[in-house]
Amino acid sequence: MIHTIAPQAAVIDVTHGIEPFNVLQGAVMLASALPYLPCGVHLAVVDPGVGGDRRGIALKDASGRLFVGPDNGLLMLAADHAGRVDEAVELEAVKPPAEHGSATFHARDVFAPTAARLALGAALAELGAPVEPDSLRRLQLPEPVPIGGGVEVGALAVDRFGNIALPVRFGKITEALAGGAACVVESTCGSVEAAVGRTFSSVAPGRAVIYANAFGYAELAVREGSAAAVLGAVRGDAIRISTKG
Amino acid sequence: MIHTIAPQAAVIDVTHGIEPFNVLQGAVMLASALPYLPCGVHLAVVDPGVGGDRRGIALKDASGRLFVGPDNGLLMLAADHAGRVDEAVELEAVKPPAEHGSATFHARDVFAPTAARLALGAALAELGAPVEPDSLRRLQLPEPVPIGGGVEVGALAVDRFGNIALPVRFGKITEALAGGAACVVESTCGSVEAAVGRTFSSVAPGRAVIYANAFGYAELAVREGSAAAVLGAVRGDAIRISTKG
Amino acid sequence: MIHTIAPQAAVIDVTHGIEPFNVLQGAVMLASALPYLPCGVHLAVVDPGVGGDRRGIALKDASGRLFVGPDNGLLMLAADHAGRVDEAVELEAVKPPAEHGSATFHARDVFAPTAARLALGAALAELGAPVEPDSLRRLQLPEPVPIGGGVEVGALAVDRFGNIALPVRFGKITEALAGGAACVVESTCGSVEAAVGRTFSSVAPGRAVIYANAFGYAELAVREGSAAAVLGAVRGDAIRISTKG
Repeated sequence: MIHTIAPQAAVIDVTHGIEPFNVLQGAVMLASALPYLPCGVHLAVVDPGVGGDRRGIALKDASGRLFVGPDNGLLMLAADHAGRVDEAVELEAVKPPAEHGSATFHARDVFAPTAARLALGAALAELGAPVEPDSLRRLQLPEPVPIGGGVEVGALAVDRFGNIALPVRFGKITEALAGGAACVVESTCGSVEAAVGRTFSSVAPGRAVIYANAFGYAELAVREGSAAAVLGAVRGDAIRISTKG
Repeated sequence: MIHTIAPQAAVIDVTHGIEPFNVLQGAVMLASALPYLPCGVHLAVVDPGVGGDRRGIALKDASGRLFVGPDNGLLMLAADHAGRVDEAVELEAVKPPAEHGSATFHARDVFAPTAARLALGAALAELGAPVEPDSLRRLQLPEPVPIGGGVEVGALAVDRFGNIALPVRFGKITEALAGGAACVVESTCGSVEAAVGRTFSSVAPGRAVIYANAFGYAELAVREGSAAAVLGAVRGDAIRISTKG
Repeated sequence: MIHTIAPQAAVIDVTHGIEPFNVLQGAVMLASALPYLPCGVHLAVVDPGVGGDRRGIALKDASGRLFVGPDNGLLMLAADHAGRVDEAVELEAVKPPAEHGSATFHARDVFAPTAARLALGAALAELGAPVEPDSLRRLQLPEPVPIGGGVEVGALAVDRFGNIALPVRFGKITEALAGGAACVVESTCGSVEAAVGRTFSSVAPGRAVIYANAFGYAELAVREGSAAAVLGAVRGDAIRISTKG
């Protein structure tokens, strides 16, 4: 759709690997990838509320980056990164076209056309009515809960390697473990000893490690194995990380 | 391969997510995506018969769009959309190259080079011998079978969300249900009550809904869940949709 | 990252489908795809040793192609293809950035920026200290082991179709089978009769066939089924192929 409306626009596919309906994972990914992306129009869609009354929005941050997507928090971890949202508009609601009565694909019917028009130079004001930036929905990253000698936090996502992403900066984990070099990681279904703050290659194959992922968030992996399989853990499961002892 | 032959051509990857060997799903996807794509060369390959005697073809429809792929029906739901195929040629058969004796990758060895040559401006007549458009293989969408108070139809495909696509226009379902707002959906392995004609967000999480998908076809989903898991259904399974009560 | 540094560079995504940690599969894929790719900068990353002491390298082969990636053998099946490596450099090690202490994403932080700089015209000598081409790590394709009336070889990879790729040229299999048209394929968990040297379409649905894949390597498939499921086989499992008898 973008190519059809704005044939000269360069389209970069950052990821199609966000878990279904995992808005928070999408928000963390967008905010994490942002510093590495050219300035431009950032289109993001993880949209379990499509067809309901969540708004569609487009906005510009203080650095001049443009964002387009649903107003469910997906955009705002990234958009707030520059310190301030300068302008935001609510995109016109899309009437289901008479020909097929579908209202389920706003990525194609609303957000991509909007992104393409912005790439062609349209002003935000041409795209919808202004909305107050403070009224846009924000997500809070879950706070890790202190437990004896460590923390508990819900798994953010599991990737195709079986690595478990945690919605917590790595520094918070090392703090909670008082700088210890090893810990015990537990879920409801299993537990494993893990090295702390190292890379895959610093542990033996089959051993677990908790480390700062590419974006500075804590992540649990089993070298050349699957942390998710070892712990029997899926997205949302409580993960307890505590001092080995 | 396209980049190598036609470096200036813009290549748009519509999907690599068609189920293995599911020619009908590919045909429906191509026809569905077509109205949203720029005019150009449309290359499509779902090709269980590769290496056999099915023909490779290239053709032009009445609107000037070009199509390249196997003559197994994949292209024709889309190509017939403009009302008429103006010209078609049979691509020269590919001899397995002596160096490795493979004849299994016509996407790379036949279809992509053909698409690249068309993008560079080659005429169809340069690419092969003319064939009669009426001789090209067409697929029929399966007709839903009326059952008491509803219809039965084979599942077209299951996507990564667990949504079950049906090869039936949504309007045919609402007709069969006489406009009812709820129905019962059954497979051999399970059954579920579903809302009719609504979007994901109009049902509660965990509840099922049958709706017009992005292209106007009927689709069954469980909000923030998996319809395929609830029904134990895979592609091809009979799905019965009938009035609740 | 490449788009950010070198916005004019055309980026071709050959595959993101290599199995986790399967360096040999990646090496075979890169070498196999090379003849079909335009000359340019070839960036490849399958990197279980990231963060350890494996080097990062960039090099130029005798044909002028440039390669960037980890020095774990991934690049060299392809780079040696032109007969000679003309120049190689060791990329500067990346210090974990203070802000998050991660050292796990060299694809983004080392290799992609290097590839982008090469695309912009940088010389290898600007990117790191010269290394002796002979010192670069090479992988050996495993030799098939002769068994009575056939060979045994470890599975290289299993794709989404359930096809089992073998790290052996197809010609070596036909040789071992003395040109027989059928064989028995066994794993620890199952066995199946297979036709030899034919394409999918030359066997009936549900029947197995061993054939030259698109790059001339031997591969086992079940037509419109899954060879991996029939044999219960995963990557690395011993596969025995012997004369039917």
